[in-house]
Amino acid sequence: MSGPTQIPGFWAIVPAGGAGTRLWPLSRRRSPKFLHDLTGSGRTLLQETWDRLTPIAADRVVVVTGRDHAPEVARQLPGLPAAYLLAEPSPRDSMPAIAWAAAVVAARDPDAVIGSFAADHVISRVDGFHAAVREAVALARAGLLVTLGITPTYAATGFGYIREGMPLGVEGAPSGCAVVEFVEKPDAARAETYLASGEFRWNAGMFVVKASVLLDLVEQWHPTMAADVRALAAEPGRLDELWPDLTKIAIDHAVAEPAAAAGRVAVVPATFGWDDVGDFDSLAGLLEAHSASAAGPAAAAGLSLIGDPADLVSVDSTGLVVARAGRLVALIGVDDLVVVDTPDALLVVPRSRAQEVKGIVDRLAGIDRDHLR
Amino acid sequence: MSGPTQIPGFWAIVPAGGAGTRLWPLSRRRSPKFLHDLTGSGRTLLQETWDRLTPIAADRVVVVTGRDHAPEVARQLPGLPAAYLLAEPSPRDSMPAIAWAAAVVAARDPDAVIGSFAADHVISRVDGFHAAVREAVALARAGLLVTLGITPTYAATGFGYIREGMPLGVEGAPSGCAVVEFVEKPDAARAETYLASGEFRWNAGMFVVKASVLLDLVEQWHPTMAADVRALAAEPGRLDELWPDLTKIAIDHAVAEPAAAAGRVAVVPATFGWDDVGDFDSLAGLLEAHSASAAGPAAAAGLSLIGDPADLVSVDSTGLVVARAGRLVALIGVDDLVVVDTPDALLVVPRSRAQEVKGIVDRLAGIDRDHLR
Repeated sequence: MSGPTQIPGFWAIVPAGGAGTRLWPLSRRRSPKFLHDLTGSGRTLLQETWDRLTPIAADRVVVVTGRDHAPEVARQLPGLPAAYLLAEPSPRDSMPAIAWAAAVVAARDPDAVIGSFAADHVISRVDGFHAAVREAVALARAGLLVTLGITPTYAATGFGYIREGMPLGVEGAPSGCAVVEFVEKPDAARAETYLASGEFRWNAGMFVVKASVLLDLVEQWHPTMAADVRALAAEPGRLDELWPDLTKIAIDHAVAEPAAAAGRVAVVPATFGWDDVGDFDSLAGLLEAHSASAAGPAAAAGLSLIGDPADLVSVDSTGLVVARAGRLVALIGVDDLVVVDTPDALLVVPRSRAQEVKGIVDRLAGIDRDHLR
Repeated sequence: MSGPTQIPGFWAIVPAGGAGTRLWPLSRRRSPKFLHDLTGSGRTLLQETWDRLTPIAADRVVVVTGRDHAPEVARQLPGLPAAYLLAEPSPRDSMPAIAWAAAVVAARDPDAVIGSFAADHVISRVDGFHAAVREAVALARAGLLVTLGITPTYAATGFGYIREGMPLGVEGAPSGCAVVEFVEKPDAARAETYLASGEFRWNAGMFVVKASVLLDLVEQWHPTMAADVRALAAEPGRLDELWPDLTKIAIDHAVAEPAAAAGRVAVVPATFGWDDVGDFDSLAGLLEAHSASAAGPAAAAGLSLIGDPADLVSVDSTGLVVARAGRLVALIGVDDLVVVDTPDALLVVPRSRAQEVKGIVDRLAGIDRDHLR
């Protein structure tokens, strides 16, 4: 069986940012979740993203990350050329990061189609992912801003939604549809309505578009930003001068929403598995699914482990153990509990309350433990 | 208010042994529970035992411990003369330890009354303890082997029981009664019967007796042991030669049970609080009671802490945290959970299953982690 063939003129952009606060103390400000192997695959989320993109983008992968994380990104991705590692002086949300990368790509390849894929998502059925990107590239070549839409599996309130319109019938993109609108994270009642209607997909922040089209869209609504990122691509030495003035804004608000209103956005439904590993409950579910399939990292029935199996002793226990302190972790009779053991901090929380971890992290500064964030 | 006056001719013997396996990983083979401050008092259980005994025994306190623990015992008790620190080459249960100490005391003071009190029990209302010992000494001077009996508060199956007989009417010991018999740890049904009858007390292993009477009792049922411990008292240099041949037996079986059958044992009912801190559930209850009274170590309502309060962040959580690794421990939404954090091992167990900790410790040897026991 041959692997997927690369997509000519396709460039992958990987924004590697986000704090992953709800995965504290595994994920830290100084070591966010994309730098970690969360699935026991032996590869970090960033490396898995790389592994997923290089078959279709070959050596055309650009990573945008925070200046603090650039050395570790370079270490984890030895195949990434220095010129394709863009280090942001400070976080300015996704639009400046992607626009900068688009300008760098467009300067090298004016006809490039770019696809932006976060470094901290977990994707299964990668062949489905490649097929969806291939369709998205076909739509992008027709001048559209294309997003990959995730089919909702429950009435999630933590994601924005995409309202799908009519099929577009573009050649090479049989499943591509128009996007009617992007909608903000809904409340629970509205999320139920969205789920029931069958018209909505989750917005996972995956966009495919011609670099020149994206820059035109940016120019239309944020002309200063477009000029600045083009200047940056031409004169990288001006980074510290130009960066601080860029508007801090997400790509959704900056261009995707207004472009959708203008009828310029398409969606390709995802036929792959997707998880943003939002919290430890989500991670535990993901690991359970992995171990149910093949050589997963299950420590025992219902108990998942990230770490060395020799570091865990358990009796009648279910949940998730992250053993990252090199110590023995002993569990007796705990149900659906998350235990995250790191050298300087320990977290214990039931899976059902995993989303509250962020609150603990917010409190650390107040108790003089800011260095643990 | 003046403190208690010392009891002339009274010597305290402190067997400092026992693994405290159910308090793992706080208590270890190399650092058993009597060496730890479990109550947040700033003093270890051994030091609290010393503090409790010196007011009535003055400088007449003899500690018997394992050879491995002798240096730490000496460090924790700077007031203990080297001659009164008896280091056992190997564990031989309580009878050889107490008989050896009795022989050492008898050689210095032939009329001594000794009282044996374990180093790892927690006692509250110490004035009641002193009063009970005073009565026990009066009974011992009349030639009896005297035990302090704990009034049962529930149908415990983890303790032996003492069946109380008629009051003895000995001067200076108004509450002293005869002991009909010692009975083994009962099953639950029998324990209920004992509790309901009002005739039974828990055997906490606290004995008061003339040193000469104890040695006579030992001689009666274990003549070789009596000769050996007398030889040891006279010639300490023969320890390694004589010790290995001593019968491994508890004082209860060796002399208390047969002496009771012979009508030579009395009991003084305890009017003090007593806890053997058998497991983390018991420890959590003890700390709750402490914090309910005065300046206890409660971290929050229903959550007890052993360690630095700065090392704990909790939300909606109850139970017990032992923070001994110098790391931050963060709890969210856990009920009646025990979390014991030490530098090389972490334990998480519900209070209701705390007695199962021993099982984990037994498994450590099998998984090549014997050094953690």
